[in-house]
Amino acid sequence: MGKYSDKILVTGHKNPDTDSICSSITYTNFKNKLENTDKYAAMRLGNVSDETKFVLDYFNMPEPALIEGALEEGDKVILVDHNEKSQTVDGIENAEVLEIIDHHRLGGLVTATPLFMRVQPVGCTGTIVYQMYKENGIEISREMAGLMVSAILSDTLLFRSPTCTEADKIAGKELAAIAGIDPEVYAKEMFKAGSNLCEKSAEEIFNIDCKKFEMGEKVITVAQVSTINSDEIEDIHKKVSDFMGEGIKASGCDMAFLMITDIINESSTVVCAGEGAIDVMTDGFEVEANGDAVYLPGVVSRKKQMVPAIMGAFK
Amino acid sequence: MGKYSDKILVTGHKNPDTDSICSSITYTNFKNKLENTDKYAAMRLGNVSDETKFVLDYFNMPEPALIEGALEEGDKVILVDHNEKSQTVDGIENAEVLEIIDHHRLGGLVTATPLFMRVQPVGCTGTIVYQMYKENGIEISREMAGLMVSAILSDTLLFRSPTCTEADKIAGKELAAIAGIDPEVYAKEMFKAGSNLCEKSAEEIFNIDCKKFEMGEKVITVAQVSTINSDEIEDIHKKVSDFMGEGIKASGCDMAFLMITDIINESSTVVCAGEGAIDVMTDGFEVEANGDAVYLPGVVSRKKQMVPAIMGAFK
Repeated sequence: MGKYSDKILVTGHKNPDTDSICSSITYTNFKNKLENTDKYAAMRLGNVSDETKFVLDYFNMPEPALIEGALEEGDKVILVDHNEKSQTVDGIENAEVLEIIDHHRLGGLVTATPLFMRVQPVGCTGTIVYQMYKENGIEISREMAGLMVSAILSDTLLFRSPTCTEADKIAGKELAAIAGIDPEVYAKEMFKAGSNLCEKSAEEIFNIDCKKFEMGEKVITVAQVSTINSDEIEDIHKKVSDFMGEGIKASGCDMAFLMITDIINESSTVVCAGEGAIDVMTDGFEVEANGDAVYLPGVVSRKKQMVPAIMGAFK
Repeated sequence: MGKYSDKILVTGHKNPDTDSICSSITYTNFKNKLENTDKYAAMRLGNVSDETKFVLDYFNMPEPALIEGALEEGDKVILVDHNEKSQTVDGIENAEVLEIIDHHRLGGLVTATPLFMRVQPVGCTGTIVYQMYKENGIEISREMAGLMVSAILSDTLLFRSPTCTEADKIAGKELAAIAGIDPEVYAKEMFKAGSNLCEKSAEEIFNIDCKKFEMGEKVITVAQVSTINSDEIEDIHKKVSDFMGEGIKASGCDMAFLMITDIINESSTVVCAGEGAIDVMTDGFEVEANGDAVYLPGVVSRKKQMVPAIMGAFK
């Protein structure tokens, strides 16, 4: 009857970022309040990042529980902040997918039965969850507001990413007021907590926020880290180069990319591994290669800038 | 720059049924009114059925224009009443999918960029379109109400299908009042207009409302016709048997099913073709075979009853 058949699981993607963790908690709270129940449970598919840890500590909220192993027949699940099979819980084909709340491209998932799905081209799942609280007249506590605004600030890089829409700004402003934070000051502290990259190994850096995509026959990995410290970018690049070059052979992926995003200067250094990967970047963005990397001014969004460019190369 | 680059195309699925045609017209009207524009254009991917012809004639509305051939780079499209690649316009991979409004299972489509998607587990796309008119305060004309309620009556078999929800009943009731029709009387006339099956060839019957599904490695076709005349069911069965047996070899499909649905008695006779197809039915529904067909009392929904049973067999 399923491992978790007494609960409906609400989970973000593997290698969870702040939006995945915060949206699973806040959407669970929304559903439980809306239906006056406690049957929805916030879950996660991996360790929380340093950035997310800062957010949960700041608002004194516990981590969601970890889903261990694969789902089974009888399990029921709601996916937030993702809709791709390669990014979701193992055993998804056994479970019933009741809902998807997301802001990404459509990624090829198949379900057996009709579902509720709300996907909007906004900067953050937190913005959609905020709208659902408002539309249904559910009160937003300081803690829930804090998690939602943290997700928005994280995903939109303090409203500066090209993915950021008017709806994200409206939500962010109102939520910051409820949470009692100054977005500028809070976001910089949050990014700093998540920027602790130099102490990490190459493998740890690559896996902080790493997403897998299936494009036709190819399997592509696109990881991203952000920093507010421009000086450490070249050090990170050097540290991950060998790991990525070796790792690509072992991982079964065809290409791997790591975006090292400079939040302050709104640019990314993208380290490439796998045959033809560097060409995908130089052709897609019309830039010169610098060894195994490219420098992309203005490029900060995996979803809106990197993935479409990579998909363009596989058409 | 695309064949249709000055317009945003709004289209239902191939072999369009009444919901696909009516939702493409009414959602186009909604979008044009909401944005005070005329850039959205209702389109179709095949001939309208006799049932749909009755609806368009009754409310004096023209057919949507036909999309001929494949879409090209630069074309922009909104999909209503479907989300599966095998059911949508050719060349979808070249076009930009801006929105999907649907009430089916998630079927594996991939897009390059984030989109707006509203999928609800209700009986009809018309019900979702109705909700969007209401939520946005857009006035519903007699003609638009007539098309939406026709779609709802058609998809829910006059509110009797297991797919029918409270939301469909609420929408249907209000829309019938605006359209000035009695749902019972109107629906029977509409079903009768669409039930004109005995005059059609086996091929025509099979193609009236025929959907293709990719399940793992297999390609499965599930067609459906409805009748209010129980007496003609056995005649239709006999007529299509040979065609389906021969057709399966030529079509490249692995299995084909035709649901002959008895609207009055709420049951279906399902004719099966292809190796193992009859076993999928007898195992899935725990019934005995009658030659190349099974009789399924209570089964009237392709989406909620047939497709999950077939998917179960391919797990």
